[in-house]
Amino acid sequence: MTDVVKKFEPLFEPKSIAFIGASRNPLKWGYQIPSNLIEFGYNGNVYPVNPHESDLFKLKVYRSIDEIPEQPIDLAVATVPSRLILEVVKDCAQAGVRALIVIAAGFGELGGEGAGKEAEMARIARDSGMLLVGPNCAGVVSPEPRNLYCQMPPVKTSPGCIAMASQSGNIGKTIQDLATKYHVGISRLVSTGNEAFLHMEDYLEYFGEDTRTKVVASYVEGVDDGRRFLNIARDVSRKKPVVVLKVGRTQAGQRAAKSHTGALAGSREIFHGACRQAGLTEVADVEELFDTITAFARQPIPRGRRVGIVSEGGGWGVLAADACAEFGLEVVDLPEHVLKQLDSFLPSWWSRGNPVDLVGGMVDQGVAKCAEALLACDEVDGVIALGVAFLARQAAEYRRRAASGTSKLASPALYEQIADIAIQRDLEWIGELVKLIDRYQKPMVIAADTVFTAYEDKNEALFALMGEGVMVYPTPRRAARAFAHLVERHEYLASVGAV
Amino acid sequence: MTDVVKKFEPLFEPKSIAFIGASRNPLKWGYQIPSNLIEFGYNGNVYPVNPHESDLFKLKVYRSIDEIPEQPIDLAVATVPSRLILEVVKDCAQAGVRALIVIAAGFGELGGEGAGKEAEMARIARDSGMLLVGPNCAGVVSPEPRNLYCQMPPVKTSPGCIAMASQSGNIGKTIQDLATKYHVGISRLVSTGNEAFLHMEDYLEYFGEDTRTKVVASYVEGVDDGRRFLNIARDVSRKKPVVVLKVGRTQAGQRAAKSHTGALAGSREIFHGACRQAGLTEVADVEELFDTITAFARQPIPRGRRVGIVSEGGGWGVLAADACAEFGLEVVDLPEHVLKQLDSFLPSWWSRGNPVDLVGGMVDQGVAKCAEALLACDEVDGVIALGVAFLARQAAEYRRRAASGTSKLASPALYEQIADIAIQRDLEWIGELVKLIDRYQKPMVIAADTVFTAYEDKNEALFALMGEGVMVYPTPRRAARAFAHLVERHEYLASVGAV
Repeated sequence: MTDVVKKFEPLFEPKSIAFIGASRNPLKWGYQIPSNLIEFGYNGNVYPVNPHESDLFKLKVYRSIDEIPEQPIDLAVATVPSRLILEVVKDCAQAGVRALIVIAAGFGELGGEGAGKEAEMARIARDSGMLLVGPNCAGVVSPEPRNLYCQMPPVKTSPGCIAMASQSGNIGKTIQDLATKYHVGISRLVSTGNEAFLHMEDYLEYFGEDTRTKVVASYVEGVDDGRRFLNIARDVSRKKPVVVLKVGRTQAGQRAAKSHTGALAGSREIFHGACRQAGLTEVADVEELFDTITAFARQPIPRGRRVGIVSEGGGWGVLAADACAEFGLEVVDLPEHVLKQLDSFLPSWWSRGNPVDLVGGMVDQGVAKCAEALLACDEVDGVIALGVAFLARQAAEYRRRAASGTSKLASPALYEQIADIAIQRDLEWIGELVKLIDRYQKPMVIAADTVFTAYEDKNEALFALMGEGVMVYPTPRRAARAFAHLVERHEYLASVGAV
Repeated sequence: MTDVVKKFEPLFEPKSIAFIGASRNPLKWGYQIPSNLIEFGYNGNVYPVNPHESDLFKLKVYRSIDEIPEQPIDLAVATVPSRLILEVVKDCAQAGVRALIVIAAGFGELGGEGAGKEAEMARIARDSGMLLVGPNCAGVVSPEPRNLYCQMPPVKTSPGCIAMASQSGNIGKTIQDLATKYHVGISRLVSTGNEAFLHMEDYLEYFGEDTRTKVVASYVEGVDDGRRFLNIARDVSRKKPVVVLKVGRTQAGQRAAKSHTGALAGSREIFHGACRQAGLTEVADVEELFDTITAFARQPIPRGRRVGIVSEGGGWGVLAADACAEFGLEVVDLPEHVLKQLDSFLPSWWSRGNPVDLVGGMVDQGVAKCAEALLACDEVDGVIALGVAFLARQAAEYRRRAASGTSKLASPALYEQIADIAIQRDLEWIGELVKLIDRYQKPMVIAADTVFTAYEDKNEALFALMGEGVMVYPTPRRAARAFAHLVERHEYLASVGAV
């Protein structure tokens, strides 16, 4: 275990947690955070602290942190109001608490007296060797190894390989919502708040060394020490993709960021140039952030910009071709031997070009066979596959008809039977696709409009893909953008001699 | 009823439909299209035609179109293979069929003999005064007045005010999937295919005069007669917003479009300039298309670019500010009297600026009160409201805990009770928001990350908004982009003296 990993152990893998300001009022942080933690099955010891209560959450309550018999405490979470915070920080430092999260706002972002208090809490933490997260933050999540969901939003994201440090609790929560929706897992999530003591780059450094983390995400409003941030970010990005959503790109955004966390956003151009040099992947939006980290989480890095497109429908193929070109990808001319191979199983009137249009999926195993022909070709660096699991729409509707029992045409049993056949076919194709990604070690980025309703319909085929960690994008454009970010990563790694 | 409306009546409001090539094989178009039509409750007479069958879909089958006793037939749908199509077109014309949809592909998009056949079918239609849709298309949808779901994808989109003509059945289906997911209704949808006879501009002309349609959407790969298209589009866009997704913007996209429907895409710049002049709203992507038509469907047109932002969370406010500025909107400085008004109910440490950050929604009725203060202000042309219905996340999780019965902390009844309170509060706020849009006749474009999981959670508050026709966007950026398109529309109407 490296020093950095050891340093962050009490924050992301705590064996004990104290809640200072624990409360019985369900509207308060002091209720919501510990109750989420307990309900989601945290595997460790929980100690509520409140001088006016005797039992909370079916646990004994302690009057102060130093009365807890287990010492030292790995992690303390302070949910008391800002005026009481300095006392709490002192008490925790004195009791030897190893990491402290301060939830309350009302410090550096207000300037003046608030900023003074924030500097003071940082000083205490530094002097005592206690990690300090926040203030003005939402908490921390680490599904493994201890089921740690220590935050305000009651969202139980599943375990995975994506770590995120966010200067907004709000944005961290959005990523969790997206992850939940698309069945994507995370390794760590921390809401960094005002960063009185621990800064964005400290978390990035940890993620770089954390063996549970393969992909790093960061939402940045501003950084105090640009040089340190970039030095660390550069080191991390040699090892793992680091995807940064930087805001304050405009004057309006800078003003908003300043009032939010007191961040002073620097010039857009300088930050952009520095990011490029450090090998960071920049994104403009929270959906683009999610689309990009999920691509990195599962897809191999392509060796170039040459894309083959396979589409179940003509329109989506055209959208993808435009989007690829607009994102700087090359919709490559397929060599004659690949065209001939495709001729052998596509209908005679197929378009003999890229995109490969399956003309409404009339070909059995069509997507997988075409995708394999493209992946096997040296002139193709990766594939965008569109419209997989298209029988899902039929299956869902047939099941609705079966369940309603009001069909005018067929028995519920017959509709169930057709639906099962459709799902079974989708599932077979999906299984093939996942194998191809691993066999050829080239990316196959997938989009399907059936994801729009996949959740209500409990689409087994798309769920199967997601279960394998393969993100299914809702549009060709978003798939192409994700592919382009994979290519940028290859080009960066090549530029520094790392591939 | 205008001549154009009358002309399209047999296509969008047919009293009788014949299916030529009706089949008992569930994998064939000849089964899927009529069975969807019947199962979804088409209100009119259905006549299967097939010389080798006697009953299908529990209906009498006719050997040929002219044997059907009801004459003339409003709409015929031909699902026979391409080699048999010319005969069918002739038979239909002879029998006085008023409109014919040809599903099969294999004509103009192949060039040569296929193109010749396509010209021939157009000639027959023209000579006989029969409308001809396609070939190489997916069908037509018109929920009202006859429950007409006459297409391959089995999707029952609800009635609404958005009409779409699409040169890809695939893209039409995507819009239907999105509409279903977001509870948005449509008035008409037609897959125009190769446009042998009826062209994109013919449908636009009809939508312009159709009283059920308020917003027009179009997916365009190419137009045969650019001048005619633009003349008609200009006339329509004076009356209703016309949103165009034009593909073939790049060489790769042009090649793909050509092989899809044989469309010859013109220069991007020429098309773009012409669209601007004609007052069309251009979009680059199918999600942007959907986001834009849903904004037009419900929101008033703002009188300028000055936006007020209200946010339940700081990060989303910053994202919105950046996005607004990047889309050319002005995140306006709020006048002192508005700041004072907000002081009266926001906590003392609020940011006193735009975005108005509600600091995690601690203020009762916060969004609605702030939004009203902004909408009432003459210096604000409209509002972007972020993070509404944020209690939904709590409510959903509390309900899960109640249902699982495995809570460690509270009884199912207590969790149900808290969930109900949360939902009730969300619903009250939502009700206020909708009233404000109508009272001030300014747009309030709404985004909330709870939409990501709203469907699985059956979020009543968001469903209530959608029930009022108010789209809830998943990110601040998409809300800002939709707002920008509303502003462009105002500017176009102002430039031609129409406001």
